[in-house]
Amino acid sequence: RINEKRLWDTLMEMGDIGGTEKGGCNRLAGTDLDKQSRDLFVSWCEACGCDVEVDKIGNIFARRPGKYNDLPAVGTGSHLDTQPTGGKFDGVFGVLSGVEVLRTLHDNNIETPTAMEFSVWTNEEGSRFQPAMQGSGTYVGRFDLETELNKTDVNGIRLGDELKRIGYLGDMELGSRNMGAFFEAHIEQGPTLEDEKKAIGIVRLGQGIRWYNIEVIGRPSHSGTTPMHLRKDAMLAAAAIVTEMNAIALRHENGLGTVGFMQVWPNSRNTIPGNVKFSADLRNPRPDILLTMHKELIAFCEKIAKEHNLDVNIDPFWYFAPVEFNASDDVKAATEKLGYSHMDIYAGAGHDACYMADLVPTGMIFTPCLNGISHNEAEYSSPEECAAGANVLLHTMLEASER
Amino acid sequence: RINEKRLWDTLMEMGDIGGTEKGGCNRLAGTDLDKQSRDLFVSWCEACGCDVEVDKIGNIFARRPGKYNDLPAVGTGSHLDTQPTGGKFDGVFGVLSGVEVLRTLHDNNIETPTAMEFSVWTNEEGSRFQPAMQGSGTYVGRFDLETELNKTDVNGIRLGDELKRIGYLGDMELGSRNMGAFFEAHIEQGPTLEDEKKAIGIVRLGQGIRWYNIEVIGRPSHSGTTPMHLRKDAMLAAAAIVTEMNAIALRHENGLGTVGFMQVWPNSRNTIPGNVKFSADLRNPRPDILLTMHKELIAFCEKIAKEHNLDVNIDPFWYFAPVEFNASDDVKAATEKLGYSHMDIYAGAGHDACYMADLVPTGMIFTPCLNGISHNEAEYSSPEECAAGANVLLHTMLEASER
Ligand SMILES: NC(=O)NCCC(=O)O
Ligand SMILES: NC(=O)NCCC(=O)O
Repeated sequence: RINEKRLWDTLMEMGDIGGTEKGGCNRLAGTDLDKQSRDLFVSWCEACGCDVEVDKIGNIFARRPGKYNDLPAVGTGSHLDTQPTGGKFDGVFGVLSGVEVLRTLHDNNIETPTAMEFSVWTNEEGSRFQPAMQGSGTYVGRFDLETELNKTDVNGIRLGDELKRIGYLGDMELGSRNMGAFFEAHIEQGPTLEDEKKAIGIVRLGQGIRWYNIEVIGRPSHSGTTPMHLRKDAMLAAAAIVTEMNAIALRHENGLGTVGFMQVWPNSRNTIPGNVKFSADLRNPRPDILLTMHKELIAFCEKIAKEHNLDVNIDPFWYFAPVEFNASDDVKAATEKLGYSHMDIYAGAGHDACYMADLVPTGMIFTPCLNGISHNEAEYSSPEECAAGANVLLHTMLEASER
Repeated sequence: RINEKRLWDTLMEMGDIGGTEKGGCNRLAGTDLDKQSRDLFVSWCEACGCDVEVDKIGNIFARRPGKYNDLPAVGTGSHLDTQPTGGKFDGVFGVLSGVEVLRTLHDNNIETPTAMEFSVWTNEEGSRFQPAMQGSGTYVGRFDLETELNKTDVNGIRLGDELKRIGYLGDMELGSRNMGAFFEAHIEQGPTLEDEKKAIGIVRLGQGIRWYNIEVIGRPSHSGTTPMHLRKDAMLAAAAIVTEMNAIALRHENGLGTVGFMQVWPNSRNTIPGNVKFSADLRNPRPDILLTMHKELIAFCEKIAKEHNLDVNIDPFWYFAPVEFNASDDVKAATEKLGYSHMDIYAGAGHDACYMADLVPTGMIFTPCLNGISHNEAEYSSPEECAAGANVLLHTMLEASER
């Protein structure tokens, strides 16, 4: 069994890096705070005798040798970056459950059959740079390395430059780790486990995600002198699309639709906006429904462009197809062995494990979080809830290493 | 008659300060560019023998003495600040028509009965600092000096600090000029004069304006894990209010409604916005209708707060009541004397003359602008159109000085 208090203490220590007044965390990818959190992870792994390497997109891998080091290792990991209004658990819990597994093995001098790998993935959140799961997606070959390193934040700063600046632009080849299975522990981020009073969620599926950049190009003009019928109001057209995103979601079972990001130009209160750029995020566990939602959004944007006599450009730059986790039964076996209550569940958020499933048998372990709230400073998971997840991770990894 | 070419050349020279690629101008109040344009105005006035003074809110007054200097002067003026996507004419045309009047009097050695005053008002645009017509409104006593100097831009920079930095925080008392009448030339900024093929608009009224800061306070949470019915989506509620602003405008004769400014927090594409701040601008020439529009907006915000189970705070921080110009007949007389085609018109935008009307008999002279477009880099008025306006200004001021 892992050490509940130690796990909790590492969560709190890590949470102080970028910690907010309201008890949350603001630690965007590629920032100085990201560097601090990575440094802390590396120091903890090195203290347990791990070899640490960094790949070309900044993912960190710490390896604890086993008995048969030519055999593929069993891996775990998640991310340390957070949302601007993030909590102390999203991603971090997965990374530190790994560290806790590592410490448990180390302190008990356990020699595992295979090596064990503990990883931190770059920019999982997709908040500062897009898309989400950028480090894992690039590692598995879904994204082109150069393209991703050249991605910029809203201020035009390149991811590659930030990784270099904080000392985490490595030279290890992508996809080159000798890994045979991957397991990720994560808070659920939704209300299901709490509602159903289950300690562990056996994640069967990661739902589909479609991300868009939408740009409405109208015509800036005076708010006091431009008659309503002569306007090309980019804000008004954008508002119609925001409203439709909600309607699309409500029309489809399990549909979600969100506009989280918006930039208005020239953003002057007596100038009718000439240009509004915003994001759109559509999700559904079923790819066919998600495709229908996608088509509805595209058609609506065309309709709005005509009705408002302006241009609407929509760039569907990221499609993440639903993924099934084929090592879920390993997670279930460990959960049952440990006697925790559990249920099957699907992941609403994307996770690094979703991309790792491209390469190796993969499973995810969910734990409850208070009121199902995440991407919010109030995000919370109790010490016991965290400990349960870390214990399941430990035993899932041990089992996989035995085989 | 004024010198058409010289007027045009000054417009082009001034337009180069903050000139944009598309032929417009971006010269926000209190910036270095604002300083440069003010310095140029001052140098032109001093070259014609004017005394220049600056008041406590940064308004500039250049005085050309007359025969009877104890008599109240005849004043003119407008503003040199522009929108971020401004043109070369809005405001600037009024200031430089004044300079052209000054040069015409100076070159012809004309001694007017009263002194003549040429002014530049601080932050008329209301883009960087709010409200609009801040310099003239403070000069006439509508706004409190300290409050206005403490107003901040989106980056938290104080107007008072910016005026000091650029050398235009003067010590002249507000409202202390000995002025007996005020006339402002301005491009119409709307399509009426062009549509009606008239050279001059005799401005009878400035329409009413109501400005609001609206803040929707929802709850940030995860776009992929928060079910639609559990959301408090500040963006969705804001979009409903943007849509209603348009509907309110369309429901009322001559109604206008605009949301030009919006800031989203945390502005991350997979976090449901927790907070959206935006502006609202409602206008109508009739105060009773504008009041109805105001009440509709307030009621709608309350309704949306309930429906979306979140908070909507609305701050109606500026009400500008419609103003009648009581020296319009002087403008009309001069226009007819010069033989220009003309029509009565009302101002859709606010102008410094609207506040000067509190203190002295005031009139405004409108000239056509291309396609009625303003607050846009494509704003344009031809040399002849500008010259007509400046000639009317010259003769209106001369007549007023004679009386
Ligand atoms: N775990 C998590 O919040 N990932 C962010 C990616 C997304 O689902 O939007
Ligand atoms: N003239 C002008 O554009 N003034 C700006 C103030 C306003 O009407 O919004």
